[in-house]
Amino acid sequence: MNRITKLALPLALTALPSLAMAQDGPTPGVNASTDSVFILNSLLFLIGGFLVFWMAAGFAMLEAGLVRSKNVTMQLTKNIALFSLAAIFYYLIGYNLMYPLGTWMSEGILSGVWGPAVLEVVGVTADGADDYSYASTGSDFFFQLMFCATTASIVSGTLAERIKLWPFLVFIIILTAVIYPLQASWKWGGGFLDAMGFLDFAGSTVVHSVGGWAALMGALILGPRIGKYKDGRTIPIPGSNLTLATLGAFILWLGWFGFNGGSQLAMGTVGDVADVSRIFANTNTAAAGGAIAALILTQLLYKKPDLTMVLNGALAGLVSITAEPLTPSLGEATLIGMVGGVIVVFAVPFLDKLKIDDVVGAIPVHLLAGIWGTLAVPLTNSDASFATQITSIVIVGLFVSIVSAVVWFIIKATMGLRVDEETEINGLDMAEMGMEAYPEFSKG
Amino acid sequence: MNRITKLALPLALTALPSLAMAQDGPTPGVNASTDSVFILNSLLFLIGGFLVFWMAAGFAMLEAGLVRSKNVTMQLTKNIALFSLAAIFYYLIGYNLMYPLGTWMSEGILSGVWGPAVLEVVGVTADGADDYSYASTGSDFFFQLMFCATTASIVSGTLAERIKLWPFLVFIIILTAVIYPLQASWKWGGGFLDAMGFLDFAGSTVVHSVGGWAALMGALILGPRIGKYKDGRTIPIPGSNLTLATLGAFILWLGWFGFNGGSQLAMGTVGDVADVSRIFANTNTAAAGGAIAALILTQLLYKKPDLTMVLNGALAGLVSITAEPLTPSLGEATLIGMVGGVIVVFAVPFLDKLKIDDVVGAIPVHLLAGIWGTLAVPLTNSDASFATQITSIVIVGLFVSIVSAVVWFIIKATMGLRVDEETEINGLDMAEMGMEAYPEFSKG
Amino acid sequence: MNRITKLALPLALTALPSLAMAQDGPTPGVNASTDSVFILNSLLFLIGGFLVFWMAAGFAMLEAGLVRSKNVTMQLTKNIALFSLAAIFYYLIGYNLMYPLGTWMSEGILSGVWGPAVLEVVGVTADGADDYSYASTGSDFFFQLMFCATTASIVSGTLAERIKLWPFLVFIIILTAVIYPLQASWKWGGGFLDAMGFLDFAGSTVVHSVGGWAALMGALILGPRIGKYKDGRTIPIPGSNLTLATLGAFILWLGWFGFNGGSQLAMGTVGDVADVSRIFANTNTAAAGGAIAALILTQLLYKKPDLTMVLNGALAGLVSITAEPLTPSLGEATLIGMVGGVIVVFAVPFLDKLKIDDVVGAIPVHLLAGIWGTLAVPLTNSDASFATQITSIVIVGLFVSIVSAVVWFIIKATMGLRVDEETEINGLDMAEMGMEAYPEFSKG
Repeated sequence: MNRITKLALPLALTALPSLAMAQDGPTPGVNASTDSVFILNSLLFLIGGFLVFWMAAGFAMLEAGLVRSKNVTMQLTKNIALFSLAAIFYYLIGYNLMYPLGTWMSEGILSGVWGPAVLEVVGVTADGADDYSYASTGSDFFFQLMFCATTASIVSGTLAERIKLWPFLVFIIILTAVIYPLQASWKWGGGFLDAMGFLDFAGSTVVHSVGGWAALMGALILGPRIGKYKDGRTIPIPGSNLTLATLGAFILWLGWFGFNGGSQLAMGTVGDVADVSRIFANTNTAAAGGAIAALILTQLLYKKPDLTMVLNGALAGLVSITAEPLTPSLGEATLIGMVGGVIVVFAVPFLDKLKIDDVVGAIPVHLLAGIWGTLAVPLTNSDASFATQITSIVIVGLFVSIVSAVVWFIIKATMGLRVDEETEINGLDMAEMGMEAYPEFSKG
Repeated sequence: MNRITKLALPLALTALPSLAMAQDGPTPGVNASTDSVFILNSLLFLIGGFLVFWMAAGFAMLEAGLVRSKNVTMQLTKNIALFSLAAIFYYLIGYNLMYPLGTWMSEGILSGVWGPAVLEVVGVTADGADDYSYASTGSDFFFQLMFCATTASIVSGTLAERIKLWPFLVFIIILTAVIYPLQASWKWGGGFLDAMGFLDFAGSTVVHSVGGWAALMGALILGPRIGKYKDGRTIPIPGSNLTLATLGAFILWLGWFGFNGGSQLAMGTVGDVADVSRIFANTNTAAAGGAIAALILTQLLYKKPDLTMVLNGALAGLVSITAEPLTPSLGEATLIGMVGGVIVVFAVPFLDKLKIDDVVGAIPVHLLAGIWGTLAVPLTNSDASFATQITSIVIVGLFVSIVSAVVWFIIKATMGLRVDEETEINGLDMAEMGMEAYPEFSKG
Repeated sequence: MNRITKLALPLALTALPSLAMAQDGPTPGVNASTDSVFILNSLLFLIGGFLVFWMAAGFAMLEAGLVRSKNVTMQLTKNIALFSLAAIFYYLIGYNLMYPLGTWMSEGILSGVWGPAVLEVVGVTADGADDYSYASTGSDFFFQLMFCATTASIVSGTLAERIKLWPFLVFIIILTAVIYPLQASWKWGGGFLDAMGFLDFAGSTVVHSVGGWAALMGALILGPRIGKYKDGRTIPIPGSNLTLATLGAFILWLGWFGFNGGSQLAMGTVGDVADVSRIFANTNTAAAGGAIAALILTQLLYKKPDLTMVLNGALAGLVSITAEPLTPSLGEATLIGMVGGVIVVFAVPFLDKLKIDDVVGAIPVHLLAGIWGTLAVPLTNSDASFATQITSIVIVGLFVSIVSAVVWFIIKATMGLRVDEETEINGLDMAEMGMEAYPEFSKG
């Protein structure tokens, strides 16, 4: 997906590989009117956007289900607050940082000219539209915002049950206002990664690994939960509500049709809508592959299938197919997703070996499967090269990790990051929020 | 939003302000065929309609999460029953009461000629369509029905934990068959409020305040729950499941894209789809603003952020932007939503001071933020005047309050409204339903 | 709905009744371009498809809410695994079995030529599309897959709390790879039931009764849960979480708009989109009718309304209208749904009399209301005859029952079907999964 929507497209397109594919925006159909193309492209953004919005609820339910009941209110508050802050700061800063208004951007350098997002006037006409040959600015903003918010959602699960609310939210502001949009501009804003030929259709790297790196740095700096690692052993801390965790996974699965399908960025032509259809089908089968791989593998390894691994396997399948949901056949997509599921099953205990405490498994799902998905692009898309994919993964990873680490350290040094021991043991809900999520259900 | 779909549009339109804007129905695009306009407008109603349907689930989850576990089965039953009754009685009476078949309506007088809703024939052609230049009758009916049902949903939360099932449902029948459609016809049926120039795009007044007034009258007549107010103090009664309450808020937020976006009533032209896009973006940011305002304010006031206030803040942001989601800029929409969030934080304790026991906070969210949103229209839309907005709020408020109060009193006098004391203390679920929502979880 | 999408349409259409109606695919509109028709039809499949996907989450929540908490993890695992397996095996075998590639199919005989589903190439053009006059193959595959998965979802609820995971999943593989697609080809693949004039718009018989027959055979072979029937009495076993059950019902209701509306199979013309609108409105009102019928009837019969009956009543209303959601008027649709609700209220205790232990009521909802819905088609659609409807119900019922029973017996004889007594009493979650769904909530 190239989200080069705010520049003259012709200029940007010259920098792209010759087989530009559908990601580059719509080609008006033989018989479809320009009005129709504009309307249908905008409609794709609106539908895709509300589906990706729904993923915010999915993350909230997944995380609320996987933490202990004494920390659920806090986790819910973080999720609704991080989405809201993402909405506001992506509007205030991020959107125009990601798609700079100035012309320097085509050279991959930040123009430094930005401000709050501005939508087209009410009742805009063909002549007055920002890009009549494409789609409405409002629909593009709405859709792009949801990707920024998704990146933020990824971070909250890893750091659950021990991080303070406000310091966490300060990090989210910086992530959504600056870190995410800046690196996203390198690819989707038509920056240097895009010019290099880096391919990342819907964001295995640009979204998911970015959330994953930020979460990883946070987990390293924050340290594991009290009691998670004892005498060299990992103590399992079961989630309090697997029904809600499963609901969360289903919501994310549903939302992903918008995430990947909407990233076609156009459905006003025969080719575009057929591509969106391919993407829906591939996205679905990759998730199924990831779930089944984790189901079988945990049965073989542990003699019992593990539901949380199956859920994370499905999500890893989804992340894996996100870098290239269009070119694989259904069979290839299934296999790509299955590898994602396998990664999760092995990575979760491996992280525990390293004493990296990731409460919900977001690092295996979003970072590791995100890397896998990005590396898998050349397997089915001849425009991609392994070298470029690896280089881009490393550049994005280094940038996000370093900046995130610096920000986490500064927050730690100034506001403090972690609740005190007593609060952590008693649960964040009563100490920090004064409110239990399930006040009437006694604890076993 | 003008929902004048069953009358000759030209006639109705003459009564409107000169800058009629997109609410007045589609203008065929230069290049789009009339077929396409019809299809795309109908599609907007269908998508908008299923999203607003989803709000019924949102209300059910929000309310089930905010009542005590001993009353959850009852609350769920009320929610699914009220939606079902709304569907049936809006079909039987409400739809044609709201958009009267007769011509007197253009003068703002009820034609008195109505009956059950009748859809177009199967496989209707352009010639046979009720309004070929606009959209299918079935899609319009489906969409409008959901607004009526939303109005009914608002009432159930306020009156939870003490009202009997059947008397409540009798009120819902009257609300959805008569009270809502009649006052809605004054604006959206092209009646006298519309002629006066009252602007209420998606129903801050027509839907949300109406539900709020009906709920307020019910709360006054019903009285507070036993134990809520003691010796001049308000006793907090925490909700039993904040995860489900949060899920409910996310569902409502999602559904609101259909509520406000669909109220553009058209997306068959460039201007219409761009306006729908603006509305999606503004609706989202207003919710975010409301949530963040409540988060910060409860932190400042109470030293701890309050999740239920944050949820209600988001909902209040949504209600606030509902009267005019199109004309504000993103920044203005955010601020309008923030004011909604602030209203909720102050109004909830204020209602408690007045001993008005609103279990879920529906009166602050839907009535007070609805009034605020209606008053805010002139701030960004020069077609609106404060005088007309205030007059309309008062007229609708008086009508709904008086009629609701009369209906509540008649029901109280004939069927009785409130469960007996023992039932209320033990919970409505076992006494009235014979079924617990969480029979296996012992109470703390 | 005729889903004859992989054959030359002209050939197939000659076999159809003269008043072919909208189910037979789109007629290009006077003014709409062929591109637009292709795009809009594909879009209907994508939207319909993601809504039907969402039903998988609905079944998961409904079933998780209606089983005891000690079996919830298992039930969730079954639901996510069965969907994933359906996705993979419908791709590998089912899709091309349902719409055979060979030409023998027009005679209703299996061509025997099939293989994995293959989508159109990336960026397909009008010339290269499999069916440019219709819709993209990917969108059709995505939509059809969801129907196959729905059939599988129906089975899991009935057999809950006692069946082993892997034997159950083996059955699901056979159901989704062979049983469902084979019988579906008889109607929707243009086979002999279609040629006979059997009408089943969205699958009261083809989907819902098939799931129901498979579940019934499983229940008979598996036997009832320990303690369900004692000394000639039925012991009620309440579900553990009615909020989630209600959420599940709302999700299914929402998804059904895609299920029935998408089965119009086209929205690229005025007539098609108006028909989709009729279907949305009728589907909604049938659900409402079913819910209200069950509410009133349980009040009359038991003096207390029964929430689980109301939920199943709504679902039965939905199943009832599924065979013909287009031709009924709103009033007829309401009545058809109400009969479905009545069926559920009487059938649930009747099955218990027969000692058929259906944990969630799937047999009354999907099988019995499915039969009723199929029989109701001639009431509003003059193209249908009772004789043909009955004959088709019997043929499908015999085929699915016999094959299912054979498969269940083979699985029972080879792998075993049922967990041992101790596991069943202690709950499947700890014994089979090693993981509780609600580990912190002590049991009452």
